[in-house]
Amino acid sequence: LVNEQIDQFRAEFLEMHPYDQAKIFEEQDEEIRFLIYTYLSPEEMAEVMENVDFELVSTFITEMVPAYAAKVLEDMSTDDAVDILNELDKNKVASFLTIMEKEEAEEIKELLHYEEKTAGSIMTTEFVVIQETMTVKEAMRHLRKEAPEAETIYYLYVIDVDKKLVGVISLRDLIIAEGDFLILDVMSERVVSVPVGEDQEDIARMMRDYDFLALPVVDFQNHLLGIITVDDIMDVMEEEANDDYSKLAGISELEKEGETAFSSAKKRLPWLVILLFLGMFTASIIGRFEETLDKVALLAVFIPLIAGMAGNTGTQALAVAVRNISTGDSGKRSNFSIIKQEAKTGLITGTICGILITLIIAFWYEDIYLGILVGLSIMATLIVATTAGAFVPLIMHRLKIDPAVASGPFITTLNDIISILIYFGLATAFMNFLI
Amino acid sequence: LVNEQIDQFRAEFLEMHPYDQAKIFEEQDEEIRFLIYTYLSPEEMAEVMENVDFELVSTFITEMVPAYAAKVLEDMSTDDAVDILNELDKNKVASFLTIMEKEEAEEIKELLHYEEKTAGSIMTTEFVVIQETMTVKEAMRHLRKEAPEAETIYYLYVIDVDKKLVGVISLRDLIIAEGDFLILDVMSERVVSVPVGEDQEDIARMMRDYDFLALPVVDFQNHLLGIITVDDIMDVMEEEANDDYSKLAGISELEKEGETAFSSAKKRLPWLVILLFLGMFTASIIGRFEETLDKVALLAVFIPLIAGMAGNTGTQALAVAVRNISTGDSGKRSNFSIIKQEAKTGLITGTICGILITLIIAFWYEDIYLGILVGLSIMATLIVATTAGAFVPLIMHRLKIDPAVASGPFITTLNDIISILIYFGLATAFMNFLI
Repeated sequence: LVNEQIDQFRAEFLEMHPYDQAKIFEEQDEEIRFLIYTYLSPEEMAEVMENVDFELVSTFITEMVPAYAAKVLEDMSTDDAVDILNELDKNKVASFLTIMEKEEAEEIKELLHYEEKTAGSIMTTEFVVIQETMTVKEAMRHLRKEAPEAETIYYLYVIDVDKKLVGVISLRDLIIAEGDFLILDVMSERVVSVPVGEDQEDIARMMRDYDFLALPVVDFQNHLLGIITVDDIMDVMEEEANDDYSKLAGISELEKEGETAFSSAKKRLPWLVILLFLGMFTASIIGRFEETLDKVALLAVFIPLIAGMAGNTGTQALAVAVRNISTGDSGKRSNFSIIKQEAKTGLITGTICGILITLIIAFWYEDIYLGILVGLSIMATLIVATTAGAFVPLIMHRLKIDPAVASGPFITTLNDIISILIYFGLATAFMNFLI
Repeated sequence: LVNEQIDQFRAEFLEMHPYDQAKIFEEQDEEIRFLIYTYLSPEEMAEVMENVDFELVSTFITEMVPAYAAKVLEDMSTDDAVDILNELDKNKVASFLTIMEKEEAEEIKELLHYEEKTAGSIMTTEFVVIQETMTVKEAMRHLRKEAPEAETIYYLYVIDVDKKLVGVISLRDLIIAEGDFLILDVMSERVVSVPVGEDQEDIARMMRDYDFLALPVVDFQNHLLGIITVDDIMDVMEEEANDDYSKLAGISELEKEGETAFSSAKKRLPWLVILLFLGMFTASIIGRFEETLDKVALLAVFIPLIAGMAGNTGTQALAVAVRNISTGDSGKRSNFSIIKQEAKTGLITGTICGILITLIIAFWYEDIYLGILVGLSIMATLIVATTAGAFVPLIMHRLKIDPAVASGPFITTLNDIISILIYFGLATAFMNFLI
């Protein structure tokens, strides 16, 4: 390409919002991407990379000339750069860090230590901090100087001589305040901060409830380490919601647009194979009742009805329990009272559905005993299945086991088994009335 | 209470963050609440009400003395006040509006007209607007005056003489800019706005992707009507995620902490009763194959296995499709290519699970024909059920029908029926090999 075309590309491309730049960049093939690397400065490319789909960005970084890539990483927000480096292999990371400017490399190295999904891993170190002894005017001057670099300037965090976090002032309040006042006198001492090891889900909840635009992150001595901004938290919320959702559906990870059928199948197969074996187990339980089945083949007709009801009521209870756990609502009540409540709910739904099905079968099949059998089974099943749906995730949560194991399909299958045991158990016991 | 105690209550209560005030307020009984109404000014109470659980707030507003309630509503953000008024009955709303200050009442009346879940219904009218002909200094002065009232001051929207939106400048850029420059010269003309009828889910997606803290809302002539701030969007994201989640689980609405078993049961029963009838339909289909069942009772053993696999693969496909629809990823591909992809995924998972189950049954039950029958059924079922899971919500979405109808339990039951038809159909056809 001649120079003129480069200029035109730059003019048009840089006029766009970085998110749109990123979407366009993602769609280019390798050849074009390599051209773009030569057209854009590392700083301009950094903005593109910050907005590129997270699953693609490590590919892009790896294909760049290392010196260029290191500069791009340097120019990105520290938190975004760290996220990317976490995805690369250790040798690659080490080589990037040696090329980078020392100060930036140090900052990144420190952030790389924090555990995934904690405050430390999502915070940025580019924030504006002011001394409590500054005047409002001095603070404004300081702010003007720092503004271009900082991730947000709308909250200014105030530290004392020991570098401990002592207050916060919003830019709004700073602008309204008189110029000669000390920050000490105009700041709010009611500053909410989170420890560096705090779980990102808890932070998201806090930001949503308190309507913060940013939250300071501190170590155990109350030293200010970084800040978390609302745009990062929106991504966390999306991620956590998708996570809960996938678990309920029994997929290991939500699939993206444009994935091949093969990779979709790979994500769904683990659960399907587990279910296959669980299903075989269910089958062998029914097999034990073959004698009962041989006598009254009609019993088989209601298996899907009963198993289906059990599976669904379990999923309902599971969904409520999981959502309450993840929005933090469940902490206030004891396990026992939650389970008791679910059992009661199951009793109500079970009684109503049980009576309904008894009447339907009694009239439709003109067999009151069969009706009572199915009705009783539905009632018992709904009580047990509803309770189990809430019980399993709660217990796992309290035992600090990842409730992922208690995902939708697992509960459904567990309840299938319970319901079939109840149904055939009752049928075998009341066999005399059925034949 | 004597005056001293009131002062102490006020001092302690008002020191807290409004969110914490709200949580404490919610827990008080009626008597105490009535006392608090007399202790706090309407303005102070407005802050509490903005943070109270949305389902409780209309109760509180209704129990206040009308004149006090009207003042509280007046002092709340217009968008929050409108949300509450939308929940009350029309006479109540009209009476509040007549007591309110005329200007505020007019603003609220206008907002009440916008449809739920659109930009108009979540926007606020308290924003800072500046003229393009102002200087930076004048704009700052204007800002200082408006700041206490505005919902956000971090983006300033610029209008021309016709009051049309022509640009935006962030407070960050305004602070850095030279005082004598015209706004016209320092603002960004690349202002992204949304039409007043835009769906809130689309707006949330935009804010998340573009990392905006606020978005201007315009009418079709590009007049600035209001702004939407990121804290409202976080609530929208939470709401939409809960919505998708509940649909997948088959509950009409997620239950809150502290709900009675009765109200939980009421929310879950509709789906359970629908499923009961769908289950009876499934039962009657199996009933048609009673002859087949009578001959080979062993067939019944695998009903839950096959129906379970069908239900789960359908839920997986449904979850992917629904999430892609609601994150806007599905727009780029044609229906046909999505369905084709799902069918392929089903073919892969179906073939693998089918072969697996054939082998297991052939060895376990020492019956190769039964193994082949179940294996073929699983394979056919997984292909059809996977495709159906994606097909149903996609078609509903394109037909502009609310995909709520295609929620988890519905797809599961539909796939139960499909799988049973396939299984017994094949069994009846190959009966000679089975007996």
